[in-house]
Amino acid sequence: MEFTVNEIAAMLGGEVRGNGNEKIMMLAKIQEAKKGQISFLSNPKYEQYIYSTQATAVIVKKDFVARKHVPAILILVDDPYISFTRLLEEYHKFISFQKTGVEQPSFMAEDSIIGKDFYRGAFSYIGNNVRIGDNVKIYPNTYIGDNVTIGNYTILHPGVKLYADTKIGNHCVIHAGTVIGSDGFGFAPNEDGSYKTIPQLGAVIIEDHVTIGGNTVIDCATLFGDATIIRQGVKLDNLIQIAHNVEIGKNTVIAAQTGISGSTKVGEKCIIAGQVGVAGHLVIANNTGLGAQSGISKSIKEEGQKLMGSPAFDFNDYYKSYAVFKKLPDIHQRLRDLEVKLQKTQSSSFPVE
Amino acid sequence: MEFTVNEIAAMLGGEVRGNGNEKIMMLAKIQEAKKGQISFLSNPKYEQYIYSTQATAVIVKKDFVARKHVPAILILVDDPYISFTRLLEEYHKFISFQKTGVEQPSFMAEDSIIGKDFYRGAFSYIGNNVRIGDNVKIYPNTYIGDNVTIGNYTILHPGVKLYADTKIGNHCVIHAGTVIGSDGFGFAPNEDGSYKTIPQLGAVIIEDHVTIGGNTVIDCATLFGDATIIRQGVKLDNLIQIAHNVEIGKNTVIAAQTGISGSTKVGEKCIIAGQVGVAGHLVIANNTGLGAQSGISKSIKEEGQKLMGSPAFDFNDYYKSYAVFKKLPDIHQRLRDLEVKLQKTQSSSFPVE
Amino acid sequence: MEFTVNEIAAMLGGEVRGNGNEKIMMLAKIQEAKKGQISFLSNPKYEQYIYSTQATAVIVKKDFVARKHVPAILILVDDPYISFTRLLEEYHKFISFQKTGVEQPSFMAEDSIIGKDFYRGAFSYIGNNVRIGDNVKIYPNTYIGDNVTIGNYTILHPGVKLYADTKIGNHCVIHAGTVIGSDGFGFAPNEDGSYKTIPQLGAVIIEDHVTIGGNTVIDCATLFGDATIIRQGVKLDNLIQIAHNVEIGKNTVIAAQTGISGSTKVGEKCIIAGQVGVAGHLVIANNTGLGAQSGISKSIKEEGQKLMGSPAFDFNDYYKSYAVFKKLPDIHQRLRDLEVKLQKTQSSSFPVE
Repeated sequence: MEFTVNEIAAMLGGEVRGNGNEKIMMLAKIQEAKKGQISFLSNPKYEQYIYSTQATAVIVKKDFVARKHVPAILILVDDPYISFTRLLEEYHKFISFQKTGVEQPSFMAEDSIIGKDFYRGAFSYIGNNVRIGDNVKIYPNTYIGDNVTIGNYTILHPGVKLYADTKIGNHCVIHAGTVIGSDGFGFAPNEDGSYKTIPQLGAVIIEDHVTIGGNTVIDCATLFGDATIIRQGVKLDNLIQIAHNVEIGKNTVIAAQTGISGSTKVGEKCIIAGQVGVAGHLVIANNTGLGAQSGISKSIKEEGQKLMGSPAFDFNDYYKSYAVFKKLPDIHQRLRDLEVKLQKTQSSSFPVE
Repeated sequence: MEFTVNEIAAMLGGEVRGNGNEKIMMLAKIQEAKKGQISFLSNPKYEQYIYSTQATAVIVKKDFVARKHVPAILILVDDPYISFTRLLEEYHKFISFQKTGVEQPSFMAEDSIIGKDFYRGAFSYIGNNVRIGDNVKIYPNTYIGDNVTIGNYTILHPGVKLYADTKIGNHCVIHAGTVIGSDGFGFAPNEDGSYKTIPQLGAVIIEDHVTIGGNTVIDCATLFGDATIIRQGVKLDNLIQIAHNVEIGKNTVIAAQTGISGSTKVGEKCIIAGQVGVAGHLVIANNTGLGAQSGISKSIKEEGQKLMGSPAFDFNDYYKSYAVFKKLPDIHQRLRDLEVKLQKTQSSSFPVE
Repeated sequence: MEFTVNEIAAMLGGEVRGNGNEKIMMLAKIQEAKKGQISFLSNPKYEQYIYSTQATAVIVKKDFVARKHVPAILILVDDPYISFTRLLEEYHKFISFQKTGVEQPSFMAEDSIIGKDFYRGAFSYIGNNVRIGDNVKIYPNTYIGDNVTIGNYTILHPGVKLYADTKIGNHCVIHAGTVIGSDGFGFAPNEDGSYKTIPQLGAVIIEDHVTIGGNTVIDCATLFGDATIIRQGVKLDNLIQIAHNVEIGKNTVIAAQTGISGSTKVGEKCIIAGQVGVAGHLVIANNTGLGAQSGISKSIKEEGQKLMGSPAFDFNDYYKSYAVFKKLPDIHQRLRDLEVKLQKTQSSSFPVE
């Protein structure tokens, strides 16, 4: 990235004090910033650094009054922290989408189409009849199977594998090593104890604004025409297992190493912690919260519950039970003591029962 | 795929009513089928659709009597559902094995051998002294290390990595991103608290008819000549960890995110649910069932048990204990009440103890 | 590998009995060894095999006295077992570092640098401004992003993906499919229930002598200049999740499928078993031991504790509580019995309460 201070100020709606033609290449903390970098001052605790910073520019509050000489160019804004955060986001977007063109060797079938401003890294593979929109960034060693469709502004990080017929929306980010569309785990027992494979012929649909972490696996649906569906805005972390025919509702967030078994429908705006296991063929209501390592064996019908444990029940009740669990040896002893005492009491009260 | 109705009828042992030369490209549900597709009618509830379906052909029961005009060609069989399932399997096999030839660039050492009807996708890598049978499909970005052997009709999906010396049987399917033959996790402590690596010099043997999901990892054995072994017919799901020197018995099925620690021998026909952890150096008897998220810390000697919990014990007993666990705060209170009451009782009975 | 018996004896400081010019290509157990292989005799139980072994050479104790004709050349040492183990380590090092040169096609940006004695496998990718030391082995299908630095004697197995700005030290081994530097899982809720991505702009630092298993994921830190840090000598197994801004202390060992949440600092010399989950923003003291499947929700301040359970507490106490957990249905019944008995006792003692 290379912007002038003026360009950055214009983006933030800020006012420049100093030479707005100076160039900015990077963002940094005020105490670490160097020439060519921009920083910000929000918390008064850090004011000292503004008098010695090597940053080319610093974003400050409109009403900032310097008590000493400030070596940096200033950009005056309403809220320096929010402005800097916005700059971080712009920077992140910039670096995320800066790669363009084709690196060789790469592979793309003749009947496949990709829009403008794409990046196709070396050793990336695009199969037959693939349809890819604009501003899509395909990092090296990525595999895109036949008949896949991908929307605009989607990023596939290195080594992502999309099986045939997968559909990915706009503004999605899929991290390295993630597998989408592998066969669902479906086997029917034969009489001799061996298993017959149930053909997995469906697809996976990933809607818009979905982010998926690294080395996650999402299986395709079993039947023709059916799909495992990840709805708009869903955020999946690393190493997650999503089985065949699962549906994850809009804006649901799932942390690392959680597994959702086949045909389960997870509602919208759920927050599911790490290492949770959800059994198959369940329905999880909207706004459900599941604590780390929980196991869900029954459908959750009432919205907005927070659950914990394996099998999971109410979060607070779980902790109350668990507090007693820790005391079980003592409780067991007290029970024994009571039994003995009562025995004595009864013996003395009713000597001949 | 492209077959005539006659060809399909011959495969199913069915009889054609209509023009058997029409072409079929696809399978579909009766209510969704289009021209060029074949469907089936089994459940009488769906009979209505046969009078309006756009399917080119429909598989029906031998004794089906149409009450109206049926636009589709009919194939008469004993059991339409079983026939359609068979067709699905054939279709699945067909699409699984349809890729052939070499895509460039790909890499294969000169002293390696591959049989007939293979597929070697772009960016696939075959090291030195590799022996591969017939009808093996190697998808793009796959790595096959030195001295690997692979049987016939085995499919390696994109990005599979087989370390040197791995042996894979016939009719295996390995899904994308799975790693086979990585070093076992073996370290010996030095006096200064650091660890020395114990060389992992063994191999992995995958027998016939094994299916392995995506992003699973199977480590090699420690010693020369030893192997981590996955026996015939085993089905492993996604994101599973199989440590060094493990053996998984014939026709055992393991669901996603389960981990089997080093040197453990799992028996035949076991059914192991998701996110289970099995400790090292154990023996698990044949036909053992392990519930989701169970933890196994001791060998299981008696066959046919179903276990649950961490550490696991009998499945039903676990649920009975867990039912009481949920009531522990109440139980604790009742115990306290009893203690108080008994105290009072005793005080009144024996005022001067 | 190909050494003469004399060369091996020199390496072990041993004395040769026989033709020291014979060539050794392989190590093997004494009962399985063939011509061109070396074995050892340590346990007297195996002495019988030395009289019939086909091994070209056998390592024996200095004071070994043959009772019959020994066909093999002997190498006399102080401790045959330790000598053979050393040979295994040398052999392992030898085969680990034997690959050299560049296989084509591979990709390396013009402004990147790699030292001497490297291996760059086919379809490996090295981005811009990368700095790689000597004796680094980069297996096929590996991705190394822009600005990455790698020390000497480090091995990247097939399909490893290093995001931009990752730093890897000397003598590290990273197994196949592992992802380092993917975005941390950071999202801020919008008012409409959707989530905004918090830019993840930090890096990952892997210090020297770190081993990482297959398909593990280590996320980058959130802020510029910050890093997720894996300290010297750490050993991570397969399928582990290390979230953003985590630090793993020197010589800590973590088994497969464990997850460490964001910003948690794990101390030195900890031993963490498989499938453990550690929550975010915690501090785990040095020398902590965590049992398999434990869940850690609070910082652990005292060093040297062994914990178990979810949430975890003292290992022994956990097992004591769990022993009572198994008896809960019985305990519940005994409590009910006591209540009934006490009711009766009181009824009879205080008939009119």
